[in-house]
Amino acid sequence: MALTTISLQAPYLIYLGDCPDELHAKTGAGIAYWRPDSCMAQMRLPDCPVDLGLPDMSATEAKTAGVKTAIIGVAPVGGRIPDHWLAQLTKLAETGISIASGMHTKLVDVPQLASAASESGAELIDVRVPPENIPVGDGRPRSGKRVLMIGTDCAVGKKYSALALHRELDRRGIKATFRATGQTGIMIAGEGIPIDAVIADFISGAAETLSPDNDDDHWDVIEGQGSLLNPSYAGVSLGLMHGSQPDAIVLCHDALRTEIDETGGDYPIPEIDDVIDESLRLARRTNPRCFCAGVSVNTSQLGEFDRETYLSGLQGELGIPCVDPVATGMTPIANFLLKVAS
Amino acid sequence: MALTTISLQAPYLIYLGDCPDELHAKTGAGIAYWRPDSCMAQMRLPDCPVDLGLPDMSATEAKTAGVKTAIIGVAPVGGRIPDHWLAQLTKLAETGISIASGMHTKLVDVPQLASAASESGAELIDVRVPPENIPVGDGRPRSGKRVLMIGTDCAVGKKYSALALHRELDRRGIKATFRATGQTGIMIAGEGIPIDAVIADFISGAAETLSPDNDDDHWDVIEGQGSLLNPSYAGVSLGLMHGSQPDAIVLCHDALRTEIDETGGDYPIPEIDDVIDESLRLARRTNPRCFCAGVSVNTSQLGEFDRETYLSGLQGELGIPCVDPVATGMTPIANFLLKVAS
Repeated sequence: MALTTISLQAPYLIYLGDCPDELHAKTGAGIAYWRPDSCMAQMRLPDCPVDLGLPDMSATEAKTAGVKTAIIGVAPVGGRIPDHWLAQLTKLAETGISIASGMHTKLVDVPQLASAASESGAELIDVRVPPENIPVGDGRPRSGKRVLMIGTDCAVGKKYSALALHRELDRRGIKATFRATGQTGIMIAGEGIPIDAVIADFISGAAETLSPDNDDDHWDVIEGQGSLLNPSYAGVSLGLMHGSQPDAIVLCHDALRTEIDETGGDYPIPEIDDVIDESLRLARRTNPRCFCAGVSVNTSQLGEFDRETYLSGLQGELGIPCVDPVATGMTPIANFLLKVAS
Repeated sequence: MALTTISLQAPYLIYLGDCPDELHAKTGAGIAYWRPDSCMAQMRLPDCPVDLGLPDMSATEAKTAGVKTAIIGVAPVGGRIPDHWLAQLTKLAETGISIASGMHTKLVDVPQLASAASESGAELIDVRVPPENIPVGDGRPRSGKRVLMIGTDCAVGKKYSALALHRELDRRGIKATFRATGQTGIMIAGEGIPIDAVIADFISGAAETLSPDNDDDHWDVIEGQGSLLNPSYAGVSLGLMHGSQPDAIVLCHDALRTEIDETGGDYPIPEIDDVIDESLRLARRTNPRCFCAGVSVNTSQLGEFDRETYLSGLQGELGIPCVDPVATGMTPIANFLLKVAS
């Protein structure tokens, strides 16, 4: 494992504190859902109504059971670590269990956690903080195969689609690794680089570092970031794309979204085929063989009939698999990916 | 002046130390050439052979003459501040003259400079360090007009072309501001943001901050960074382009360069008209009216006859002004820019 990616050691305890509802425990629930074999325990304050279905353990019980890392799986309002979590978190650090967090407050900036960890040798891992010594990208072609999720906007299901595609490849016995580019993805994968937090000059270098040379029949399934169409984040998306040198892209989309969210201007989402054409033109700068393996659409706001009409219409128009990654699954995209890339 | 850009106060003293030759004094020479009215003095060690033609002054003389900022105008090997410069630099800081540097060693990390500056109230300004509180870009259209330099690669004359175009507009009495995006440009302009040093998520926000709302007939002439074609830096270039919302682009090119420098792969430079088309497609995401105002070519390696053949051939093919910014000047591009944008 390269020193220039963040790395968390399993097994995990998911820390939930006094998380009020499941929505705020999305990160913890995601880890438990996608990496059940890595999750050994949960820890909650007495009044926490959320239950991930994992055994509740104290710090000592967790240590005895072999837990290596406690992951803060809840997003409190404001992204700060509340004082009333500190007794439990400090106890974990004192027993030598490392703590990982994606919150704004850095763990290392909480004095009592820093001192407990330094005495026990536990690590405090802030997954928003990129590793040091990321090199400038150099564009050297790498061995192995890569598929990158891209989106028509932010928050259209890129992470979910990547994890589901990875799971599908894994199920078939194909060598594959999910490559995380954002904080939640990193906590699920146990490693990765928060691409949007690196210094601008190093975006593509970070992407190159994230998916190094590999076996010719190995697939990296790379979580995307941002969108080439989003005026706030397109630079991140292009640097990630160039550095990833994808053999294939999967376009993620939300069926009901017609324009980019949260901008101060008028940014309509173009026709899907135009988005694919433009994305391939850009991707082919670093991988001339790149193709689009399918479109992964969040259709959760459509009824079942409308979903079928929407997806079959899009698929008829584009001639590539169009799926909902939750409702219909990634199997057609995995099939097409492997067929075209073989 | 926005608080979120770096800002240097004129008049300047250019510090040359023991600079061995003019090549290493490029930054100082650039400031003296482009901003003669801001340059009041130079300071050298006794054995320095380089002379920018400015009066040599001691720290006390400079202070009395009204110098506000000493700019380190020399790039020593390794980018570190040599110990034998410290006596002079400390004396400057002690007299209350601020010091600006683009070197790897941060001024604030040199204890004797830090303590001298803190006692006198002088500022230590590291132009590689981006200002804090840069916002995420939001894509809101802004008033005023903008022209952005882009390049077929890094180091093809974007800064020179921007400064020359700005000078040409200024000469005609047109309201215009040179907007610096890199360290040398910032030292010439006295303000700016080192775009490639900001966190990836904030590239377009930094570009938006750099060229704020302005009078409808005011031009921001924006120095470019990197190249959309360069696999190491294209993310920076796209974020800068989206945030700049350019009304026009000027493509900078080196006549003899056929592929991207310093990569580990095979990255040929495409045909110039294809580069312009692709760049305009991307630029029009945030400014649908964007056009290409010309091509600015470094032809210094061609003889005069070949230069004329090259530039007239390119101009005939593209139908827009094609110039060498040094040998033939930016006048045709300024004419075309103002005509099309009016």
